[in-house]
Amino acid sequence: MSGVWGEFLKISIFGESHGKCVGIIVNGLPAGLELDLAFIRRELDRRAPGKSFATARQEEDEFEIISGYFNNRTTGSPLSFVIRNNDQHSRDYEEIKNIMRPGHADFTAWSKYNGFHDYRGGGHFSGRLTAPLVLTGAIAKQILMKKGIVIGGHILSIGNIADTQIDPVNPDPELLLAVRTRLFPVISEEQGKLMQESIIQAKTEQDSLGGVVETAIVGLPAGIGSPFFDSVESKLAHLLFSIPAVKGVEFGAGFAITEMRGAVANDEFRLLEGQVRTATNHSGGIQGGITNGMPVIFRTAFKPTPSIARGQKTVDISTMQEVEIRIQGRHDPCIVPRAVPVVEAAAAIALLEMMIEKDGTLWMI
Amino acid sequence: MSGVWGEFLKISIFGESHGKCVGIIVNGLPAGLELDLAFIRRELDRRAPGKSFATARQEEDEFEIISGYFNNRTTGSPLSFVIRNNDQHSRDYEEIKNIMRPGHADFTAWSKYNGFHDYRGGGHFSGRLTAPLVLTGAIAKQILMKKGIVIGGHILSIGNIADTQIDPVNPDPELLLAVRTRLFPVISEEQGKLMQESIIQAKTEQDSLGGVVETAIVGLPAGIGSPFFDSVESKLAHLLFSIPAVKGVEFGAGFAITEMRGAVANDEFRLLEGQVRTATNHSGGIQGGITNGMPVIFRTAFKPTPSIARGQKTVDISTMQEVEIRIQGRHDPCIVPRAVPVVEAAAAIALLEMMIEKDGTLWMI
Amino acid sequence: MSGVWGEFLKISIFGESHGKCVGIIVNGLPAGLELDLAFIRRELDRRAPGKSFATARQEEDEFEIISGYFNNRTTGSPLSFVIRNNDQHSRDYEEIKNIMRPGHADFTAWSKYNGFHDYRGGGHFSGRLTAPLVLTGAIAKQILMKKGIVIGGHILSIGNIADTQIDPVNPDPELLLAVRTRLFPVISEEQGKLMQESIIQAKTEQDSLGGVVETAIVGLPAGIGSPFFDSVESKLAHLLFSIPAVKGVEFGAGFAITEMRGAVANDEFRLLEGQVRTATNHSGGIQGGITNGMPVIFRTAFKPTPSIARGQKTVDISTMQEVEIRIQGRHDPCIVPRAVPVVEAAAAIALLEMMIEKDGTLWMI
Amino acid sequence: MSGVWGEFLKISIFGESHGKCVGIIVNGLPAGLELDLAFIRRELDRRAPGKSFATARQEEDEFEIISGYFNNRTTGSPLSFVIRNNDQHSRDYEEIKNIMRPGHADFTAWSKYNGFHDYRGGGHFSGRLTAPLVLTGAIAKQILMKKGIVIGGHILSIGNIADTQIDPVNPDPELLLAVRTRLFPVISEEQGKLMQESIIQAKTEQDSLGGVVETAIVGLPAGIGSPFFDSVESKLAHLLFSIPAVKGVEFGAGFAITEMRGAVANDEFRLLEGQVRTATNHSGGIQGGITNGMPVIFRTAFKPTPSIARGQKTVDISTMQEVEIRIQGRHDPCIVPRAVPVVEAAAAIALLEMMIEKDGTLWMI
Repeated sequence: MSGVWGEFLKISIFGESHGKCVGIIVNGLPAGLELDLAFIRRELDRRAPGKSFATARQEEDEFEIISGYFNNRTTGSPLSFVIRNNDQHSRDYEEIKNIMRPGHADFTAWSKYNGFHDYRGGGHFSGRLTAPLVLTGAIAKQILMKKGIVIGGHILSIGNIADTQIDPVNPDPELLLAVRTRLFPVISEEQGKLMQESIIQAKTEQDSLGGVVETAIVGLPAGIGSPFFDSVESKLAHLLFSIPAVKGVEFGAGFAITEMRGAVANDEFRLLEGQVRTATNHSGGIQGGITNGMPVIFRTAFKPTPSIARGQKTVDISTMQEVEIRIQGRHDPCIVPRAVPVVEAAAAIALLEMMIEKDGTLWMI
Repeated sequence: MSGVWGEFLKISIFGESHGKCVGIIVNGLPAGLELDLAFIRRELDRRAPGKSFATARQEEDEFEIISGYFNNRTTGSPLSFVIRNNDQHSRDYEEIKNIMRPGHADFTAWSKYNGFHDYRGGGHFSGRLTAPLVLTGAIAKQILMKKGIVIGGHILSIGNIADTQIDPVNPDPELLLAVRTRLFPVISEEQGKLMQESIIQAKTEQDSLGGVVETAIVGLPAGIGSPFFDSVESKLAHLLFSIPAVKGVEFGAGFAITEMRGAVANDEFRLLEGQVRTATNHSGGIQGGITNGMPVIFRTAFKPTPSIARGQKTVDISTMQEVEIRIQGRHDPCIVPRAVPVVEAAAAIALLEMMIEKDGTLWMI
Repeated sequence: MSGVWGEFLKISIFGESHGKCVGIIVNGLPAGLELDLAFIRRELDRRAPGKSFATARQEEDEFEIISGYFNNRTTGSPLSFVIRNNDQHSRDYEEIKNIMRPGHADFTAWSKYNGFHDYRGGGHFSGRLTAPLVLTGAIAKQILMKKGIVIGGHILSIGNIADTQIDPVNPDPELLLAVRTRLFPVISEEQGKLMQESIIQAKTEQDSLGGVVETAIVGLPAGIGSPFFDSVESKLAHLLFSIPAVKGVEFGAGFAITEMRGAVANDEFRLLEGQVRTATNHSGGIQGGITNGMPVIFRTAFKPTPSIARGQKTVDISTMQEVEIRIQGRHDPCIVPRAVPVVEAAAAIALLEMMIEKDGTLWMI
Repeated sequence: MSGVWGEFLKISIFGESHGKCVGIIVNGLPAGLELDLAFIRRELDRRAPGKSFATARQEEDEFEIISGYFNNRTTGSPLSFVIRNNDQHSRDYEEIKNIMRPGHADFTAWSKYNGFHDYRGGGHFSGRLTAPLVLTGAIAKQILMKKGIVIGGHILSIGNIADTQIDPVNPDPELLLAVRTRLFPVISEEQGKLMQESIIQAKTEQDSLGGVVETAIVGLPAGIGSPFFDSVESKLAHLLFSIPAVKGVEFGAGFAITEMRGAVANDEFRLLEGQVRTATNHSGGIQGGITNGMPVIFRTAFKPTPSIARGQKTVDISTMQEVEIRIQGRHDPCIVPRAVPVVEAAAAIALLEMMIEKDGTLWMI
């Protein structure tokens, strides 16, 4: 396996939830970038479990830069971060290490790694590994922001309760930025309240909920991405499907476009103040794998948190017996609110990669 | 941009629909493999437009091996294929080269390549580039078949007409293989008839239809894939989103899992004849990016064919005027039937890549 | 194995000497480049056996562009070339396929590919595969030339006869360009004559000669390359050691620097017309893997042609008997003259790759 | 730039000599490997400056595993190491940061990174970065050792004093292992004494020395490596030229082979106890980029330590004035003895990468 992703912007992730730390190495950034460390911290806070509502766990995501940063600037050398793990209750896991938790990677990790994986709290499979992604995404966002590119996500749904959709043709960047700062990132705060109630209800019932994150990228120029095999969709989906619990990704109208006829689905072109724009945006701002200058819109489906307190049937891999498991602990009944910054981060990283690709050869012509 | 994909199995695609040829170079296969050329031809036929119903175009997808094959065996050197283009009406495109066809990559290609792309019939963006993918997929399928792995897709829906779903827990490999051979690959032939009628109706109305392809991979061992960033979902989605017209990919219950509660969504483990199996398969056979030995199930959303005869508004990029376009020619009103082998091929290629990764280090232990 | 090289400029090589063709796919070039096809042809001619002195074989290296080029410009899509093989005497090889030719890759290919490789005339191991490299190098040279970068090689030695060295501090680009056009590319034509005589002598004695190619890259800006692991030396050496028959690569003073003391070996800095220059150039224009703006100087060692007519002892792999072999045919008694353009091409390709890397992130700052 | 190398075994290096730490992430190892930590420590000691003779500096290369290792076994997840920096005299460097040290990467780093690099003690360009390589090499060696593969280097020369060469046809693995454990790794201890005297002499004269490391890899099977572009030479040279101060790499007879005739240079095949062997080994155990089962022999040229106490002319980049510099501090007058384990490590890493490639597809046939 490889924890390395990217060709122009090459990231290398590592760590386990109950080991010493999680971290990431970022290759490919130019020297001389000043990082907004406070912004990185705020982004990490958006993902941190303690800061979310409905979670008891208080996690400190304090990051440390261990290389590639000098006199408050990137040096051009590999830029490395670690986030130490403080809140470790490893013994909790020792007892149940052979009981394969349904919906978790226990059994698949056991199969691939012949039982040698770090089984404590998900180990390398833990959602905690998304913290380094959010951190890297925060850097990418800073760079993209300078070019006027805004990436904003919101909770589109929790279970069957839906938020207002982002306007795919004219999303308001200010609104996106405002939603991003909310503890519970929805557009309709009314719907947000219903969602929160349903989450609390699920928790009471020792159960959990999933949902959909919708994201818009605004301000992108036309011409980012490639056909075969580095389409915007391919690059984004590759990173999005790396996020634990993601089971679906769709762009623009997504699966719903399959029920439209061509005459409706096609985004007709218009001239707007001398710019080529589309009248609708069913394609999500991408044709042939390349951006058309319209907002890139995509949705990411998250399954319900697999850790639930109610009894579930499973297998003890050491005895090869069927057993029942009740997962104790302070588990988040719905990770979707905390997933929003992770999705944004994945998008920011993928975009930065593609934007480097675009400009590397301009000098030749 | 790069037409290269993969690390263990490295493929390099090239060509344009109205240039000399399309083709692919396959790196990473061992020496000594005997290719079933007749099987490759049959797979190409499944994708070829002339063989489908409702298309006037008769395309010959005759492939030629130009390197890496000697005495009817792979040599271990790069294995290269070209498929020549015969049916070229390049002049058709000259007249409309500045008229950006809605839903096509004309404008995005123009933006990225500053107008220097080959605009004839989609050029490198054409669906014709999926022929080399199908060809490579046919090779991958042969290899996987020897290990008892079957990949089978069907049309799950055309517009709003749905086929019977594949049983996610116990899909019948014989059924999958049978469906694969059908000219119109559906499980319920009755529903297939309705779909075909709706396609003919759309064509009559100078319009087009999209749909969803559902695919099952049966016989996969547990332990294929990786967490961050080479999950089964990431690798498959990367290739699937390279296929023109794909706007969504979901695994297992996909977007629907977001409306389930954890207690339902979690696939409980069971022992079945000494094997660990799951009672349900909402996760689509993958947890933590790794296969669990259950069937891998995924769905791919295709937008309606963008080429339609009815009038559409658009922009002439040379004059920067709004104009109307009517796309002439023998366009397929629905590419979904022909997309089935392409989806299967993408899955086969991604799987083979991951299976090489798995076995490369076994000797170390 | 993989015939793919590069990250920014990704090339994919294929073909066999006695199969249908050899070829290459070039990814990563921008759209809109006009290729100087006559220049490519002249470069191929420099490598072609018929054009060299002392070779009977007349090879036609006529290349065909099969994708990525439209209206006399690159399209931005994969740019693909094939060079067909005309002069095939495959039957010559059938008889001796089991007789492992000393100095050739017969036995190593047999070992790696279990006997399934294409053994005719070296197959994929043939020096003929350097033709696609020269072709790609010719494109890279054109691009570099526009930035004032000249790459020029010459025969530094054949056996123990040496040419005048290139001045490492102030090489004359006009001289380099002039030498490049010579049929026998040396600086001292007198020494060149002696070399040619020694080659003819070796041929008469049914033997062969090797030699050293020295190359200078002039006009490079400071700041190209990277430390760990993408140093200029690493990238260049990687490609140079891909060329058949290369057994050594050294930069600047190379192995001789190991006999200097630090006070001599260190290249002191000077100011020359406001530019930082070095007084000597023992480092070959590179420190810490990055160019310093001085000429990059390197030498490449080629072993003698392994195909010789005189008797050699070897093994018949089918009978596992020791046998004698006399290699018939029109073999080049010394490939060094034809290797000069290949070395230059490898350097041009590696440089272009590194120059794309340099400029891709400039917009971020 | 990228600190990532490899495709099957992917390593990601980071750190600076006077920052917090240096380190490396290793991807691609299987789960379940028990690391011989004491062996890693011994290997690091071979490189550590304090352990060598003639150096005042006492450096502690204590490594810490920060991920991928659990219950004394690899987990299959990224295996990460940091080596903290203790001995930092950063202020020494502040004063001279604008004075470009001859032979160092000060000017090239300044050029590439626009002055934003970490200039303290070489920063990311420091020889200290070879410690993570040695560490990774120690792991690779352990794995290779289990397959009977021994990699052993020695000092072939310091300045113009030469050690006995390794027998290229029948090197004694026991001797190689013995030399490896020596504080001053030479075969002839007599010659070693002369070398040490010359180093002390150079130091007295405020000067420094370079030299050549010769390495043998014994026990390799035939069939490792590839033609174009992943030849054994390419892969090894790529990593070797990443090591600071390396200016030349040659295989087998290397540059000397250019003065042999083909009849001498060709390694004739023989049968020895049923095995195909070569009578000589001028090719260094490699033909066509692939091992032939004979020992792989190569030599690596190291320039003299650039840090010397005697005055040198250079440039102050801030004032753009020519100035004189005298480099103070406890600099190693000859790094060649400490370079031996670094060269061995680079070879072990490259080999492991190629051996994974070989075995990944065996199951297909």
